[in-house]
Parts: sequence; C-alpha cells; structure tokens
Amino acid sequence: MSEVVVVGSVAFDTIATPTGRHERMIGGSASYFSLAARLYVPVRLVGVVGSDFEPRHRKVFEDRRIDLSGLQVRDGKTFYWEGVYGEDLNDRTTVTTELNVFESFHPELPDAFRRSKAVFLANIDPVLQHEVLEQLDSPDLVALDTMNFWITHQKEDLLRVLRGVHLFLLNDAEARQLTGAPGILEAAEGIQMMGPTVVVIKRGEYGALARTEKGWFSIPAYPVGGAIDPTGCGDSFAGGMIGSLLRQGSLDESAIRTAMAHGTAMASFAVERFGLAGLEAVTEESVRQRVRALAEMTRFDPE
Amino acid sequence: MSEVVVVGSVAFDTIATPTGRHERMIGGSASYFSLAARLYVPVRLVGVVGSDFEPRHRKVFEDRRIDLSGLQVRDGKTFYWEGVYGEDLNDRTTVTTELNVFESFHPELPDAFRRSKAVFLANIDPVLQHEVLEQLDSPDLVALDTMNFWITHQKEDLLRVLRGVHLFLLNDAEARQLTGAPGILEAAEGIQMMGPTVVVIKRGEYGALARTEKGWFSIPAYPVGGAIDPTGCGDSFAGGMIGSLLRQGSLDESAIRTAMAHGTAMASFAVERFGLAGLEAVTEESVRQRVRALAEMTRFDPE
Repeated sequence: MSEVVVVGSVAFDTIATPTGRHERMIGGSASYFSLAARLYVPVRLVGVVGSDFEPRHRKVFEDRRIDLSGLQVRDGKTFYWEGVYGEDLNDRTTVTTELNVFESFHPELPDAFRRSKAVFLANIDPVLQHEVLEQLDSPDLVALDTMNFWITHQKEDLLRVLRGVHLFLLNDAEARQLTGAPGILEAAEGIQMMGPTVVVIKRGEYGALARTEKGWFSIPAYPVGGAIDPTGCGDSFAGGMIGSLLRQGSLDESAIRTAMAHGTAMASFAVERFGLAGLEAVTEESVRQRVRALAEMTRFDPE
Repeated sequence: MSEVVVVGSVAFDTIATPTGRHERMIGGSASYFSLAARLYVPVRLVGVVGSDFEPRHRKVFEDRRIDLSGLQVRDGKTFYWEGVYGEDLNDRTTVTTELNVFESFHPELPDAFRRSKAVFLANIDPVLQHEVLEQLDSPDLVALDTMNFWITHQKEDLLRVLRGVHLFLLNDAEARQLTGAPGILEAAEGIQMMGPTVVVIKRGEYGALARTEKGWFSIPAYPVGGAIDPTGCGDSFAGGMIGSLLRQGSLDESAIRTAMAHGTAMASFAVERFGLAGLEAVTEESVRQRVRALAEMTRFDPE
C-alpha cells in the first residue's frame, strides 16, 4: 500500500444552500480529497494556509493520518470562498473569492514526499501542477483535475502537464471546452489523445463516464435522498477513486471500475452534509455498502 | 408471446440538424414505437392519417408485421411537424406544427384489438389515452408517455389515467414539472405514488433511471459515435423496452432491467440516422450486440 500526495487548496468556505448557511468551514480541493483518500492510504497534503488556520483546524487532518508537513503557513489569511447554491444545486453563484496567501503559493514538497508514487494535482494553476511533477522522482500514478478558467487562460500550460498524466478527471463542460467537440464521447476520446491514459468525465447527478484503454465505463450517481451541499464532490470522488486504486495496487480495467464506484460512493457522502462533515463521519464499511448497492442498481442480465 | 397495441401520432416530419435536412419523412410517436417493438412482437397501430398518406408509406409498416387496421384514414392532410436541432442536439426548436386530421382524432380500437393484453399510450391528450383504456378488456401492461403541455393544461386528466398505468415513461423535466420536486429521485418516487408501478425517467445522452417496486435501476446511454437525429428516441426506447418485456413474458425486476437495456439499444439505433431510417435497418442481432455491450460497459466488481 502506497501513500498519495495531494496538492491543492485549503480554504475557509462560507456556503449557503436552500437548506441553510454555514460560515468559514474548512474547505478547498486538497481538504476534500484528503478526507476521502485517507480511508484507503496515508495522505500527504501540500498547500498553504494563513495564520488564521488554527490548531483545531489542523487537528481535523492530523486525527486522520493526513501528513501536514507539506502545508505551508504564511502570514496573512487563508484562501476564502463564499458561494450560494439555488434550489437546483447545479446553480452555483460565487459571492466572494479571496485568494489571500494562496495568491503567491508555490508548492514545495518535503524531501520525504519526493519519492511518493502517486499524486493528485487538484484544480490549481497548471504551472504549479507542473512544478509539482518536477519535484517528484518517478510517480506511477499522476492524477489531475482542472477548471474552465485554466482552459481559457492557460491552455498551453495545461496541455504540457496533461502529457504526463495517467488519470484526468474533469466535468462535461470542461471536456467540451478543452476539445471543442460538441459530444462528450468525442471530447473524451480527444482528451485521451492529449496524453491521459484514463479520462473520467464527472457528470454530477448523472454519475461518471470513463474512457479507458479498453473503451467505455459508465456508473450512475449513488441515489442520495437529501443532497445538501455539492461543494467538493469532485475532489471527494477523486479521493475515493485514487485511494481505491492505490489500495488495489493496480491500474487495470477492473481496478479502475471498482475505484470509480468508490469515488461515486464517496461523493454521495460528501453531498449529504455541509462542508467536510459528510467525509469526517464516513467509514470504510459505509463506503463498501454503497459500492455494493451501486453494483446492485446497475446489474442486468443481457439475455 | 403477446402483441401490443400502440396509440399515438403518425406524422410527416421535416427535420433539420447540423448534418442535414430531410423533408416529409414518416414520423410520429406511434411510428417510432411500432418500428422498434415489431422486432419482438406483432404491433397493432391505432392512429389517423390523411389522404396524403400513400400506399408506399403504409408499406413501411405492413412489411414489418405492423397491423394498420386501426389506422383511420380521413379526408385532409396528415399531422405535419417541422423542427430544427442545434449543434447541441438537446436544443430543439419547433418551426411548424400542423395537427390537420389529428386535431379531431378519437381512437377507435377494432374489435380484434380489444382483448390485447398490452398497450402503449404514446404522447397524446390524456382524455384520448383514457378513451383507449375504456376500449380494452383487461390489459396486463399499460404503458404511457406524456409531455409538458398535458402536465400544464390537463393535469387532472393525466392523473386519472396514471392511476391505471403500470409503466410510465417520461423525461427529467416532465417528472420535475409533474411533482414540483427539485430532485429527480423525489420526483420519481412521487410519481410512483400516483399509480404507476414502474417509473422510467428518460435522460437522453445520460441514459435512463427506473424506480421499480424493488428500488432503483440505472443504465447509461449506448455510446453512439455520431448522433444525427434524436427525434423519436423516447418512443424507440419505449418500443424496445415494451417489446422486450412482452417477449420475456414477465414484469419482474430482472425482466424490467433487461427490457430497459433493449430500449436503450433501440434508441441508439434511432438516433444514428434521420427519421425512421435507423429503426428500419435494425435487426434482432444488432440490438442484442448493443445490449451485451451495455452490460459490459456497466459491469464492475464491488470488492
């Protein structure tokens, strides 16, 4: 069993949805990823926080075998994000984004992290993602996320990083934007040509679709009774998927499929509560139960 | 093996998509359904056409064991519809709807049809759907489709029909509209309370989701390389699904799941060519191949 390095944001989020409003919860892509992946393997977090990130905040990670020796602490404030979701949780409006200490962030991997065999490059500037790859000796699994902003403004940098990526996770709209293909199938195939061995298209309530070396794999979302807060679901998916891959010790087709089910289950726990609360409470057994339920709700006899 | 009665529209469609424009093709919900279901069971079509519906048009049905003795021929023109699809095939604009002889249509089942055990009430006025049910002796399978117009303008009539329905097929937006539920899961459960034993939510490129007596079943769309014309895909799905159910002679969970895979495969053939052309060419073996491919692309090991 190997450990995983994650590089991304650690933030304070204020989130309002039709069911409530919560202020200054711990958020950020690296936080969601870490809380999900830690159920499978030790996690090494690389990021930056300000002096307002208190011991009680660190404790959330430290209590869960998440190594914070790569978490820089800088004078100033931690990245702050405020968003509002509509009745349809796909409708999200950003109220405030304060980059704060994140604005001048450059990832620095502690020496002990450099020989890590797996890394998740969460949604940050592709130039920083590239800097991380240069600090790693020879990772066996490079996984990456991105967003529309980088596709629009730093496409060349993103394409350079993509050449060295094994697993690329992105959403429908990003896949279409990156390739210009109107259909998601053409888009996924086109992205595979850019480097990634496996392309996972995250489709929110519709589940996820993967283009692998063998072809297509599709899995629905786990049917959650009450979706509360979709913040961080994509990073939770990545944490469950990559954690499961490392636990399985394989990147073959069967491992990828099982891992996507774990990612799907993990995202369902994340969406059920505000902020990290869903992931803080999740157990290995509760994930396995949902993975089995997903297998049951997709199984059919073709004859 | 039983036969199925379908009541719906038979039309001439003019369709423009980014890949081309085709004028006055045979269309209508009953046509798509018939061409799909005929691969499984004999089909009895109930509808109305005008005097412009020529022998060569009838031949498309008669060559495929589709019984037209319930197809009324009236003085006047056949229902005519013209639509334009955008680059994103989900964007559809209706240019012209001429109801013509369909405007005064009342379904009349030939005596031989009244003892039929299965009926598909395609998307027509729920009052007419009710008239059909009154003419059937005691059907074992009543399946129904509808659209936003009837939900808005004749909800009470629709709710009356729904009480006697076993299988209700509708799309995401219709399900939300009918129940007022923001989430599709709550919507499907709410609709089940209105009468239907099985609720199938059609989600286009995202596949289909069923709420059955046992719980949830989800199946992705078959990955079609070139989607050309989505007209009639929902009715093709219904034809494949209901045909398969009747062929299996069962409405149990396993039969429903297999049948949804057949519906999914059938819709994929419909979308690949303009109008009915995809369904005219389809064979039992080609459907079975896609059903097996769907099983393969959704299978995973939960452990």
